[in-house]
Amino acid sequence: MPSYTPPLRDMQFVLHEVLHVTDELKQMPKHVDMDADTIAAVLEEGGKFASEVIFPLNQVGDQQGCTLNRDTHEVKTPDGFKAAYDQYVQGGWPALSADPEYGGQGLPVVVNQCFYEMLNSANQAWTMYPGLTHGAYEALHAHGTDAQKALYLPKLTSGEWTGTMCLTEPHCGTDLGLLRTKAEPQADGTYRITGNKIFISAGEHDMVSNIVHLVLARLPDAPAGSKGISLFVVPKFHIHADGSVGERNGIYCGGLEHKMGIHGNATCQMVLDGAVGTLVGQPNKGLAAMFVMMNAARVGVGMQSLGLTEVAYQNAVAYAKDRIQSRSLTGAKDPSKPADSILVHPDVRKMLLTARAYAEGGRALALHCALLIDRELNHPDETVRAESAEQVALLTPIVKAFITDNAWTATSSCMQVFGGHGFIREWGMEQYVRDARINMIYEGTNTIQSLDLLGRKVLGNQGASLKKFGRHIAELVAETQGDEDMAEFINPLAKLGQQMTQFTGEIGYKAMENADEVGAAAVDYLRVAGHLVFGYFWARMAQVALQKIAEGNRDPFYQAKLQTARFYFAKLFPETASLILTARAGSAVLMETEAVFV
Amino acid sequence: MPSYTPPLRDMQFVLHEVLHVTDELKQMPKHVDMDADTIAAVLEEGGKFASEVIFPLNQVGDQQGCTLNRDTHEVKTPDGFKAAYDQYVQGGWPALSADPEYGGQGLPVVVNQCFYEMLNSANQAWTMYPGLTHGAYEALHAHGTDAQKALYLPKLTSGEWTGTMCLTEPHCGTDLGLLRTKAEPQADGTYRITGNKIFISAGEHDMVSNIVHLVLARLPDAPAGSKGISLFVVPKFHIHADGSVGERNGIYCGGLEHKMGIHGNATCQMVLDGAVGTLVGQPNKGLAAMFVMMNAARVGVGMQSLGLTEVAYQNAVAYAKDRIQSRSLTGAKDPSKPADSILVHPDVRKMLLTARAYAEGGRALALHCALLIDRELNHPDETVRAESAEQVALLTPIVKAFITDNAWTATSSCMQVFGGHGFIREWGMEQYVRDARINMIYEGTNTIQSLDLLGRKVLGNQGASLKKFGRHIAELVAETQGDEDMAEFINPLAKLGQQMTQFTGEIGYKAMENADEVGAAAVDYLRVAGHLVFGYFWARMAQVALQKIAEGNRDPFYQAKLQTARFYFAKLFPETASLILTARAGSAVLMETEAVFV
Repeated sequence: MPSYTPPLRDMQFVLHEVLHVTDELKQMPKHVDMDADTIAAVLEEGGKFASEVIFPLNQVGDQQGCTLNRDTHEVKTPDGFKAAYDQYVQGGWPALSADPEYGGQGLPVVVNQCFYEMLNSANQAWTMYPGLTHGAYEALHAHGTDAQKALYLPKLTSGEWTGTMCLTEPHCGTDLGLLRTKAEPQADGTYRITGNKIFISAGEHDMVSNIVHLVLARLPDAPAGSKGISLFVVPKFHIHADGSVGERNGIYCGGLEHKMGIHGNATCQMVLDGAVGTLVGQPNKGLAAMFVMMNAARVGVGMQSLGLTEVAYQNAVAYAKDRIQSRSLTGAKDPSKPADSILVHPDVRKMLLTARAYAEGGRALALHCALLIDRELNHPDETVRAESAEQVALLTPIVKAFITDNAWTATSSCMQVFGGHGFIREWGMEQYVRDARINMIYEGTNTIQSLDLLGRKVLGNQGASLKKFGRHIAELVAETQGDEDMAEFINPLAKLGQQMTQFTGEIGYKAMENADEVGAAAVDYLRVAGHLVFGYFWARMAQVALQKIAEGNRDPFYQAKLQTARFYFAKLFPETASLILTARAGSAVLMETEAVFV
Repeated sequence: MPSYTPPLRDMQFVLHEVLHVTDELKQMPKHVDMDADTIAAVLEEGGKFASEVIFPLNQVGDQQGCTLNRDTHEVKTPDGFKAAYDQYVQGGWPALSADPEYGGQGLPVVVNQCFYEMLNSANQAWTMYPGLTHGAYEALHAHGTDAQKALYLPKLTSGEWTGTMCLTEPHCGTDLGLLRTKAEPQADGTYRITGNKIFISAGEHDMVSNIVHLVLARLPDAPAGSKGISLFVVPKFHIHADGSVGERNGIYCGGLEHKMGIHGNATCQMVLDGAVGTLVGQPNKGLAAMFVMMNAARVGVGMQSLGLTEVAYQNAVAYAKDRIQSRSLTGAKDPSKPADSILVHPDVRKMLLTARAYAEGGRALALHCALLIDRELNHPDETVRAESAEQVALLTPIVKAFITDNAWTATSSCMQVFGGHGFIREWGMEQYVRDARINMIYEGTNTIQSLDLLGRKVLGNQGASLKKFGRHIAELVAETQGDEDMAEFINPLAKLGQQMTQFTGEIGYKAMENADEVGAAAVDYLRVAGHLVFGYFWARMAQVALQKIAEGNRDPFYQAKLQTARFYFAKLFPETASLILTARAGSAVLMETEAVFV
């Protein structure tokens, strides 16, 4: 049976020693009173909820899955899921970062993301029920009418109701322009919506009294393609004007998917049969409104994989310490026992350090991005808000794709540490691998993320957003000039920064001739960008650790941070050498393959 | 539902156009009559059996798994497994490459490996039932007494009985020196064996009338560690001297594991409670006898992953052709449809070509290795036999680890091509990923393979075996001197050969100071060696294709081969650049991590 300990110390390190969040938050009137003690108290309680209430339900959720009653269209979640959700609501957790106007506690996004990392470590499948609600909340908060906000936001904030995103259809996932679900306007200003949706996470379940579906559909006179899509809010049960819940609406679960992982979450085929909904935002502008949900969801997916990386790492280290097998290549390390702990083997350490470096690098990046969202939402200076939004846009595909690809590597490495036991269900490791796999696919596949990064966020503005991130690196390089202890981190980082500039220019140039050059390079490019960003944060973290050690601080935490930074730069960061070669190899070897794909 | 077409054309290409197997086999008296028509006929029939009989059982096997009756200790395999096995026996397939002295057909190993690739594409879990028999057969054939051979080999050859390898115990997998199962000598020359084994594939099932367990155990006076292990043969049912089957022996299944994949194969906890067995080979020399099984099993695991890579590729290509979604970045390619096939997207092609290049490169390597085994066994010249054995020893860890790591990448890429559908069980893709995962673990984890390669097979003889493989490369380089069309393959290959020589010397030198340098570099080293070997075969295959094209051959097969070779050298082979960097980064960043692993 796996175990989980919330990584509160490491979160505090990133929040306060790397990002200095309280200084940042003090600049925002909404968060001016947010102090370190409050944050620590929230995270400690949040960590208890995650580790004590929902972590014990992770394996049972995987084994039981969800079941659909085909007569009533009701979905039963695994044993204990509803009771845990009730506790979640009673504890006020759904309201953590929600708007106080609708009953929220108004805490910063950066604090809520720490909480979500812990929830995801504990139980990704369970966490998707409240997690999806955030997207629906954001879309309604940004684009809903006052009446829609008044009707839905208080219940989503309290957690009495949950939300969904109904986008995908059998014939369209990535390409939403193909969607067919129809919305017919009614005399009373509502719409009757008909169509079939698939892959709807938390689309139906038994944990709440109502479910708020955000549905993409076409109006009768809509233009073809993605410019003819509108967004609607469609409740499972009709809601009277006074907020009371009425009869069942015409939206129901027609089937559940059997999946590789996240078995505890209900992945529903949703049938809309003249379901009544109201328009959210402008007609035919649904994709823009949807992207409010989607961008939040993409950062959320990064948090899912960060959580899985952390919990897989914790369990693999514990196993490696405990498992004795063979002797060190340099001679017995524990002659009193019949064999040494497998921690004596270099490759076991490499597998563990890979997961650790990815978890801690991912945490720094994800919380940096979350703090930028707080600045985007609440900074008093409009320029800061705009620049923060630009950086969030740049980093979102990296958070989504780089962290989820890394988690696939990391959870698999942690499973490998267990040898044959890793393949056995009861140890819990293979579930982390299976659960992690979906994160590379949903909310835009990682290929889509890479095209978003390279095509839109980098080449779309001639690298301007990337250059702004590059300024952080330039500042760090300048600041550490002549610092010999920092050279092993700064030199490769500075070199990659230069390579990246040249490399981006090259691809941009080639892309003017042939747009396929973007598609051919994008996935490699995103991984290089990911290492640039991780490299920056690892160098920053090493800098903090070196300063503490220089001050005489004996806490092994700082030594560990430094050792992990050295590992990262020596063993993971050099992946960029090959990635740059393969990205530069161009599109012809991919596209001039007509004989392969006859 | 996935589909599978035996890749007979590509097998013929490797067998005849790359390896020239009939010329090679003609040199072996045993195989002097083996002609291309016979091989083709066997593979065609074998492919039919694989695709028509056992492929349809792959998904049902995954969904049903095996069940243990705790009262009778009997294991029920999934529906259809036994009937398919009966057909396998009736078709004479178990005897394909077995010794005619015991009823075998005496076909070359290289033909049998082609058949096993197809069986594994069709259904890895099912294939493990007959597959494990090979190991038991080999161990008894090499080390059994005449009486043991007479008793067991005819029934294993006919397939009436199956075999197992009972090695692992709860506290020892990699380190068999720790094993505790005891064997007490009896007055009649037999032994009574008591202990607990785990992870015993095909340890108990309902497909045959008897199961032949090869069991590692300790004699009462055995020295501690791996020098005190003996090998025993222990039948499920006692066998009378006349060969008739008697009462139940004291070996039974105490539990079944619930696993990530290969659900259709029974992974058994085996309890030996005074089970009667006989000694195989010399007392305390069991590990040597066991390695006869193990080396065959390691090549077999490579074939498992080769099979999974091939079938995953076939299905992903079919899906990609069929699925329309978005437009090409260079403009609509099929304006008559609402979107283009996803084959227009460079990264989709990259994912597919990755799987294809790994499948075809893996097939060339695996069949080269199989032909070397035929030479080792049957070549009249003792020097050739010895040199072949040396090359088999060198290549076995590469076949096992490189092909299985590649299959993990390839099956996951093929699943990714399906987008969200890839995560759904009914499409069958996620099963390939789950099944492929065990291949990196069992029969010696891939880390163990890398230590075997670098420590024993390369540094153990100062690189002599590797240099012998290098001669093939040198010959090809010399042969293609000045051939401009070959330069794009030969130049990187020759460069890597030089790097490898230097790199091997460097590690050897560092290892004399610190043995952990071997452990720190070994996994990266094996992947570099894998690309060296794949690079050699891809260059050879490109050479054949270029010759055919130059001769005016219009078969798109050769164009496809050439295009895939170009892809391989441009997009996969450059991984070696990073691997050499990380391998050179040394052991200190891994081992000087005491603060991380407090």
